[in-house]
Amino acid sequence: MAEEGLEGALLRQLQALATHQAARGLKDDAAVLGWPLGQDLVATHDMLAEGVHFTPECPPADIGWKLVAVNLSDLAAMGARPVGVLLGAGIGAGRGADWAAGLVRGLQQALERLGVPLLGGDTIRSGPASVLALTALGSVPPGAALGRMGATAGDQLWVSGTIGDAGLGLKVAQGACFGADDAALLKRYRRPLPRLALGLALRGVASAAMDVSDGLLIDAARLAQASGLGVSIDSAAIPLSDAARASGVPAAELAASGDDYELLFAAPAQANGAVLAAGQAAHVPVARIGRLVAGAGLMLDGAVPDRLGYQHG
Amino acid sequence: MAEEGLEGALLRQLQALATHQAARGLKDDAAVLGWPLGQDLVATHDMLAEGVHFTPECPPADIGWKLVAVNLSDLAAMGARPVGVLLGAGIGAGRGADWAAGLVRGLQQALERLGVPLLGGDTIRSGPASVLALTALGSVPPGAALGRMGATAGDQLWVSGTIGDAGLGLKVAQGACFGADDAALLKRYRRPLPRLALGLALRGVASAAMDVSDGLLIDAARLAQASGLGVSIDSAAIPLSDAARASGVPAAELAASGDDYELLFAAPAQANGAVLAAGQAAHVPVARIGRLVAGAGLMLDGAVPDRLGYQHG
Repeated sequence: MAEEGLEGALLRQLQALATHQAARGLKDDAAVLGWPLGQDLVATHDMLAEGVHFTPECPPADIGWKLVAVNLSDLAAMGARPVGVLLGAGIGAGRGADWAAGLVRGLQQALERLGVPLLGGDTIRSGPASVLALTALGSVPPGAALGRMGATAGDQLWVSGTIGDAGLGLKVAQGACFGADDAALLKRYRRPLPRLALGLALRGVASAAMDVSDGLLIDAARLAQASGLGVSIDSAAIPLSDAARASGVPAAELAASGDDYELLFAAPAQANGAVLAAGQAAHVPVARIGRLVAGAGLMLDGAVPDRLGYQHG
Repeated sequence: MAEEGLEGALLRQLQALATHQAARGLKDDAAVLGWPLGQDLVATHDMLAEGVHFTPECPPADIGWKLVAVNLSDLAAMGARPVGVLLGAGIGAGRGADWAAGLVRGLQQALERLGVPLLGGDTIRSGPASVLALTALGSVPPGAALGRMGATAGDQLWVSGTIGDAGLGLKVAQGACFGADDAALLKRYRRPLPRLALGLALRGVASAAMDVSDGLLIDAARLAQASGLGVSIDSAAIPLSDAARASGVPAAELAASGDDYELLFAAPAQANGAVLAAGQAAHVPVARIGRLVAGAGLMLDGAVPDRLGYQHG
């Protein structure tokens, strides 16, 4: 990491955070970490850009939190146990030390909440807009990683938690008003919680899994496609929060909104009990919303929906 | 990775490149890799931003190459063997498919040259400017990683290759003319080669090591500081190429220019033979340029130099 100006202040704050021995105080060219013996490595890297994934007005601490959460959600989807993260912080020209300190605060809150160490990274000036990157590393027993490709025709399709709250939270951030739960909806959008415990509990139970980032429908279509199948979803079975029900927004529309960071997964019908037990073990509700079928494409209540979800352009 | 527009084309090109089984065709939420049994993990993450680390005019293939090289240079400095990389490609608003294809071409050339697989990553639109990130993962036997912190007073200071060619190459890129070797100097700047074989050969030999990225002098001062020492350098011993000598630029100035990506390392005097043997085994010249001393700070030919090197602001 560089050592002067805003980046210098940022580096000192990150050094205070990077107390794990593997991080070497962020004073070396790389992190060095004893790897859990015999475990596979799971690695993912997601970026968030100002003006694309977050607005200039978004509180920096929420951006720091979300950067951690979206990457650890990918580890959760693979059934991996987080080992550590590396941060790439590109700070835009208009941002000062206060903004960067807010970013670090949110990053720290998420890492502490989830018990994951900061191992290393880079801090730069990134030009006009801020661009943030995170690499998350996790471990999994050999061959036990989940993935999108393992489902079989006839498998049940499940989803964790509730769907659409984050999409409503985005609308709250844009000025919409749904009622007394607006703050909770906004929090679902800005401070998602990756389903790490559920991902671990689904190892050996789910046949395929992914996290819901772009919307339940489009992501279900992707899981089915990766497994060489089609998928059929019952909109009445999609789990909604009381706030989402009260919003009056139809389930089909909520299922086409993004940022849920729930787990979407398939399992054979005979594993229904094991799936429910996994949900209980992880203290996360799980709902059966459809099934994988031979063929291709997605059907919602027996018809092709108008819109699947948000597609990054 | 997202799946539409320019990002879709980019994703397809990267999928063609990501043939290693661990990458899962870039179709899953993360890469899954069997880890070399009992080896420590070494992880580093460096970013390159348009307008900061490269100009808009720089050929995209050179940027792709350099992104790989600067990260693998950090692995080389730690004595790590590369295992794979994850790419974060933030493509600026003004960039089209041709630019992105050039970036991938340079990335591919570097990865093939160095024998390192692409494991995963993310492709996004990053706003006005392009911002590129790479995470490099490597392996090292337990406790064998090199680092900046291990030097002892009396250790010799060594550097590989030649110093200052990349700094002259940057001036060529900016319009300067030094003579017949200008193309070679420009190549040293735009297509650095990380000293991976030398890093491996220095395990158990060097007491401390780092790569030279911001300039020989400032980086030597950092290595000394990390080891709690001072450092004394003899400018006449700094290895220069014929082109650098012919440029007429003084060694002290060349040693304050960046982007060499050579290895700078310390070793006890009784290891001189082992250091020379490591250089021969790696087919890289190594030169003894000074020594670590009790105290703090850097002396060049017995005096404090005016300028140490480039400091990112």
